[in-house]
Amino acid sequence: MNLHNYLMERKNMAEAALDKLLPSVLDTPVRLHEAIRYSVLSPGKRLRPILVMAGAEAVGGYPEDVLPASCALECIHAFSLIHDDLPCMDDDDYRRGRLTNHKVYGEAMAMLAGDALLALAFELIASNIDRFPADRVVEVSRLLAHASGNRGMVGGQVVDIESEGRDISPDEIRYIHAHKTGALLTASVLSGAVLCGGDELQINRLRSYGESIGLAFQIADDILDIIGDQEKIGKPVGSDVKQNKATFPKLYGLEESKKLAEEEMRKAISNLDIFGESAEPLRQIARYIVERDL
Amino acid sequence: MNLHNYLMERKNMAEAALDKLLPSVLDTPVRLHEAIRYSVLSPGKRLRPILVMAGAEAVGGYPEDVLPASCALECIHAFSLIHDDLPCMDDDDYRRGRLTNHKVYGEAMAMLAGDALLALAFELIASNIDRFPADRVVEVSRLLAHASGNRGMVGGQVVDIESEGRDISPDEIRYIHAHKTGALLTASVLSGAVLCGGDELQINRLRSYGESIGLAFQIADDILDIIGDQEKIGKPVGSDVKQNKATFPKLYGLEESKKLAEEEMRKAISNLDIFGESAEPLRQIARYIVERDL
Repeated sequence: MNLHNYLMERKNMAEAALDKLLPSVLDTPVRLHEAIRYSVLSPGKRLRPILVMAGAEAVGGYPEDVLPASCALECIHAFSLIHDDLPCMDDDDYRRGRLTNHKVYGEAMAMLAGDALLALAFELIASNIDRFPADRVVEVSRLLAHASGNRGMVGGQVVDIESEGRDISPDEIRYIHAHKTGALLTASVLSGAVLCGGDELQINRLRSYGESIGLAFQIADDILDIIGDQEKIGKPVGSDVKQNKATFPKLYGLEESKKLAEEEMRKAISNLDIFGESAEPLRQIARYIVERDL
Repeated sequence: MNLHNYLMERKNMAEAALDKLLPSVLDTPVRLHEAIRYSVLSPGKRLRPILVMAGAEAVGGYPEDVLPASCALECIHAFSLIHDDLPCMDDDDYRRGRLTNHKVYGEAMAMLAGDALLALAFELIASNIDRFPADRVVEVSRLLAHASGNRGMVGGQVVDIESEGRDISPDEIRYIHAHKTGALLTASVLSGAVLCGGDELQINRLRSYGESIGLAFQIADDILDIIGDQEKIGKPVGSDVKQNKATFPKLYGLEESKKLAEEEMRKAISNLDIFGESAEPLRQIARYIVERDL
């Protein structure tokens, strides 16, 4: 398989589905729906929707069938970005070269657009009842709620905020990365696999895969913040250092961080050894995540 | 039945369940969990959890069985209050005589506590898989997501913000009230009834009941803001007028608003005529909502 073509095709599928499934700007409240679409449809890699589809494929499912779940994951991701950018959080004016949601729609609308996106994700998951057994739908809803909330993404965000401006331990940075980024990436792979009937062994292996690529992804992000190309990473190089954020290079140095990212990539791929050709997209995505620009 | 005792007993059940099901302050991130518990466990009528239980009872279910769903509704309610109070929204320092969440924990933590509560609600709903058929659990998840999001509570909030400082039409105020308050009250009654196997006719009648008490509740609230007792309503009397909020008395006058609230109460109760004694709590709650202090 050609990874570039695969990613492009899946990204196009996800974006077409998002355009169809997001609320219309012809419906009330118009401005809320504009704010929602502004952020969700802004350019992105669509890594989470692609992982939902790749997780489905790994266990023998069809990517078309998990498009609503793919969209749900992108909604949760967009919700987290909108809220992270607000003045009371990171106070960012730009994301990937475009004005952040609250700079366009105001703080109240941005917060509400984020709230609505989190709710919408669970509506999209529930809509799967038409094509998958109900118990699988409940399990996906449960794992997304867990990955988004106090023991997942929000929890990681809180510990990240609390760590700013002080030295943190290796355990803490792993907690932050595992929760802020890893939880939702893992939930993405698992959503597709659970909906398409993955068995317990498959689900356990895919969970480990997700945790490893989640960590690898975040280490790679930390590294790119230091050595990357501003255009590609979409924010000024060195902004983590400036904000005194907890990063792997800060704790382990650049070379050791690269080694750790590669180690996680290898762990991720070795977890896929029970799968055949169907997991080839997941294997290549693991490599892509780490080797993007390093 | 004695309504006062009924409400007290159900409130105690809901609060004991909340204390048990909310994240512990012994777990990481401690401060997030403190912020969550601060708001959810602050004094309240627990109307939504009580409606979940009363909805269950109406169709022959047991209140004990719907306690996780009751807690989920209270989590969504608390999420909406925390976000509503933030500086970018209503900017309130007090709620029911206590400092608002962001005044105690800071804006970032308050926003994240709200986010986590919305996610937690769906985790609590998914946990019902142990005691109810999966398709009912999915349906409850769907209707809560719908009631909370862009076509529900958040949508009503947006239209309310957009209406501030200008004249609004009867249609608009009904939209605001139906979405801001009515959607979640209706979802409360339906959650209990759907989990406990209410049939289509029962669900339709309970939906109409919920919509009517939702509207009656908000009209009563608007009236209390003018003639109420500050201690009982927990905010300064006249604060809606001061903020130039869209209210029923502003549009219809006080006497006509009272009549409209009573009319909705009668509609609510007449929708229960297919139920027997099992819907007595719902009937009395409808009266209580309108007659609280009017």
